[in-house]
Amino acid sequence: MPPDDTVDDDAVDDHTSHDLPFLEDALPADAITTSDDVRDAHATDWGTDDGTAPDAVVWPETTEEVSAVLAGATEHGIPVTPYAAGTSLEGNPVPAHGGISMDLTRMDSVLEVRPEDHQLDVEPGVMGPAIEEAAGEHGLFFPPLPSSGDISTIGGMIANSASGMQTVKYGEIADWVLELEAVLADGSVITAGSRAVKTSSGYNLRDLLIGSEGTLAVVTSATLELAGRPEQIRGGRALFPTLDDATAAVTDAVQSGVDVAKIELIDAESARMANAYTGADLPDEPMVFVEFHADHGIEEEIAFCESIFEAHGVERFEIADDDRMDDLWRARKDLAFAVRSYDPDLEPLHPGDVTVPISEYGPLIQYAKERAAEEDLLVPCFGHAGDGNVHYSVLVDPDDPDEVERGEALYSEIVQRAIDVGGTATGEHGIALGKREFLVAEHGEVTVEAMRAIKRALDPTDTLNPGKIFPETAEGERVRADVPEE
Amino acid sequence: MPPDDTVDDDAVDDHTSHDLPFLEDALPADAITTSDDVRDAHATDWGTDDGTAPDAVVWPETTEEVSAVLAGATEHGIPVTPYAAGTSLEGNPVPAHGGISMDLTRMDSVLEVRPEDHQLDVEPGVMGPAIEEAAGEHGLFFPPLPSSGDISTIGGMIANSASGMQTVKYGEIADWVLELEAVLADGSVITAGSRAVKTSSGYNLRDLLIGSEGTLAVVTSATLELAGRPEQIRGGRALFPTLDDATAAVTDAVQSGVDVAKIELIDAESARMANAYTGADLPDEPMVFVEFHADHGIEEEIAFCESIFEAHGVERFEIADDDRMDDLWRARKDLAFAVRSYDPDLEPLHPGDVTVPISEYGPLIQYAKERAAEEDLLVPCFGHAGDGNVHYSVLVDPDDPDEVERGEALYSEIVQRAIDVGGTATGEHGIALGKREFLVAEHGEVTVEAMRAIKRALDPTDTLNPGKIFPETAEGERVRADVPEE
Repeated sequence: MPPDDTVDDDAVDDHTSHDLPFLEDALPADAITTSDDVRDAHATDWGTDDGTAPDAVVWPETTEEVSAVLAGATEHGIPVTPYAAGTSLEGNPVPAHGGISMDLTRMDSVLEVRPEDHQLDVEPGVMGPAIEEAAGEHGLFFPPLPSSGDISTIGGMIANSASGMQTVKYGEIADWVLELEAVLADGSVITAGSRAVKTSSGYNLRDLLIGSEGTLAVVTSATLELAGRPEQIRGGRALFPTLDDATAAVTDAVQSGVDVAKIELIDAESARMANAYTGADLPDEPMVFVEFHADHGIEEEIAFCESIFEAHGVERFEIADDDRMDDLWRARKDLAFAVRSYDPDLEPLHPGDVTVPISEYGPLIQYAKERAAEEDLLVPCFGHAGDGNVHYSVLVDPDDPDEVERGEALYSEIVQRAIDVGGTATGEHGIALGKREFLVAEHGEVTVEAMRAIKRALDPTDTLNPGKIFPETAEGERVRADVPEE
Repeated sequence: MPPDDTVDDDAVDDHTSHDLPFLEDALPADAITTSDDVRDAHATDWGTDDGTAPDAVVWPETTEEVSAVLAGATEHGIPVTPYAAGTSLEGNPVPAHGGISMDLTRMDSVLEVRPEDHQLDVEPGVMGPAIEEAAGEHGLFFPPLPSSGDISTIGGMIANSASGMQTVKYGEIADWVLELEAVLADGSVITAGSRAVKTSSGYNLRDLLIGSEGTLAVVTSATLELAGRPEQIRGGRALFPTLDDATAAVTDAVQSGVDVAKIELIDAESARMANAYTGADLPDEPMVFVEFHADHGIEEEIAFCESIFEAHGVERFEIADDDRMDDLWRARKDLAFAVRSYDPDLEPLHPGDVTVPISEYGPLIQYAKERAAEEDLLVPCFGHAGDGNVHYSVLVDPDDPDEVERGEALYSEIVQRAIDVGGTATGEHGIALGKREFLVAEHGEVTVEAMRAIKRALDPTDTLNPGKIFPETAEGERVRADVPEE
């Protein structure tokens, strides 16, 4: 991320020769820095601005360098926290215990495209546009990119088990990763998965590493699966008189099997914020954005969707031309920014997501809105409605401690409600720091202890991203093999 | 599986009271047997007839009983090998070290259907037809059932990470499992996954357990996802002048993105065997069976497929009426039996599967056939062609030691070839006993050691299905936490 000229050679020499001497054996000098501005930049992500800075930041460029850093760090008991684009929300790449920030953005090569197998090999720092460009040259695309895909890395998407607007039709990032090369904490290099589209050979380490948020291994390359581009793509939007009508329409569409490629809810608050941020000129009403992909028969599918929306009182159902639709999707993609910049006196608490079974989607949003009204707080809701995925923020005046406290409580209530109705504390952003308190609530202590056992087995010295995912314990936050089990 | 009257109470009392006393505390008397015929029946699967018998067979009916048996077995150092329908091929449920066979076929209830969420909760002993019946009442179906789904259990499908004819369109069993309840070796009960359609909350224990072949946990219930039935279903078959033409046509169809729900290769040898077994009256030629699912536009998709097949010299492309198609699919489903009963003087060695990237599919079959001709052995090939999945058998005269040896060598050569071209030793049947020698060849020792570390972490006493998946070690076959790492 930082250009080479941010590297402060003196600081590197002074600091690393004292505290982190193995780094100089593992990496060239221009791949190590201890300068304050760079360290501070690696103490934040989109949802976290109060993290602790690492002691040093390194930029490995090869698997061998990743391995050498990890082996040395494990030997010397230094934490290593992988970092990439910093677009995560829960503090996933923000060090909890200092140590080394391993920035993977220089490992940004598309290694190989095998169009005959619809496969692409990439390094972890490759971003969405490079994937789409390499795939697009062969008439292919990578369907599960998240909304932030333009500016986030595949390594981060894999680490956090990301998904996106097209997950409703095509599945998650995890569904499009075939094979991973990854380095364990002791520096050993493993290969997880297969280039075959299916395998039942040995334990599924691939899907264990996906979503482990850099706590089990550092991914150094990934084989992705690609899809052929659909012949027909049409997008549009539907306006509803009430939010309940909009969520009921989405739910009915999913239950009826409408073949949508995207189906996104935007509530009236979010629409207002999008208008303020981008001048999107959205009506001040609950709306649903849709997109359809097909090789034939797209008009029938659109008509099917419209008929269901009509049963829920849709006011307008418009299929837009491409330019207009690009604007609408841009407004949707920018909602995270729009919420943040809406009112200079208000700040969103922990932007995040929860996901529930589709039958609980409408009731959850209704609950969030009712509680927001009771607390007199602004809680914009949007997200990947077809997956039962709600993105929400609670906006508070940061100078009003009482409001902050009520906001925090309401934020937590909504997460707990999602868990209570059979959903998950996070559909696509991970637990990291921000949601550790919900891990046991969602999975139970026995299941969490099984997760801890796996952490201890693969990273017994707790080198990789310590302090993440697992709630604090009486013995301290780090999950070490030498700490007695609770 | 055995009726209650097979239980030999005297034997139970005599034997278990001596060697396995904890069983009587864990289970009612009619859920335990040590009778020879039942033990012997639990020493086989479809691909294994020389296994070792368990010391006792138990039939738990609740999670609590599964937990009590496992806790007692771990305490007493007794192996427990889960068993269900016995339709696996690689010895997955066949004890390698005696102990207890835990037969889960009495846990066969459909617990709940939630059609509004397209979800179904089942116990592990539920078989395909019960799933289809419960789903069908709501216009839904379970797409990934394997060919043996009529007579195999969902627990076995999950244990072996199974897939089937419709995986080419809909994905594998793993893709349709949302949440699992499972019991670890020490008797503790965990919940893996979520009823939300996506989650990034904590480690993905669900996909770690799927395909772990009963070595990490015993699944006691599963939440499955269901799909709406397609409006249009059409099936047919295509005959090709040569096997190369048939595999090239399949490969081209996949690469071109033809939306097939099934696309199965049957070579001329397999066709002859099907005719002999079922009187299927198939032509003595390489052929491809196809099925299309759509909500609209199915005729266009069929025409698209036909145009691709024509480019590869298809001789006949026939879309059949439903009754005729049922006969054809029955012939395909029965191929495993047909191969086995084809010639009383010949026996198939290890029926199994390998899977390769689609561009390697034709070359792999070509290689198998060329080597078969060189060795003068019959090697019928069939399978889920669109996934690059090859089922093959090497037929040998069991009384001819030289032929058996050449057959074994050829069988192994084909597995190794699949690995060499980027594929997997097994796409859908697991490693178990039959393919342990290929685990390191496919994944490398470092990766296999990471798998062993997970086994030791979750099952430190190696209670669950010991001797499976991992190759034999100098210290003996069992992977125990107290055995030094290699």
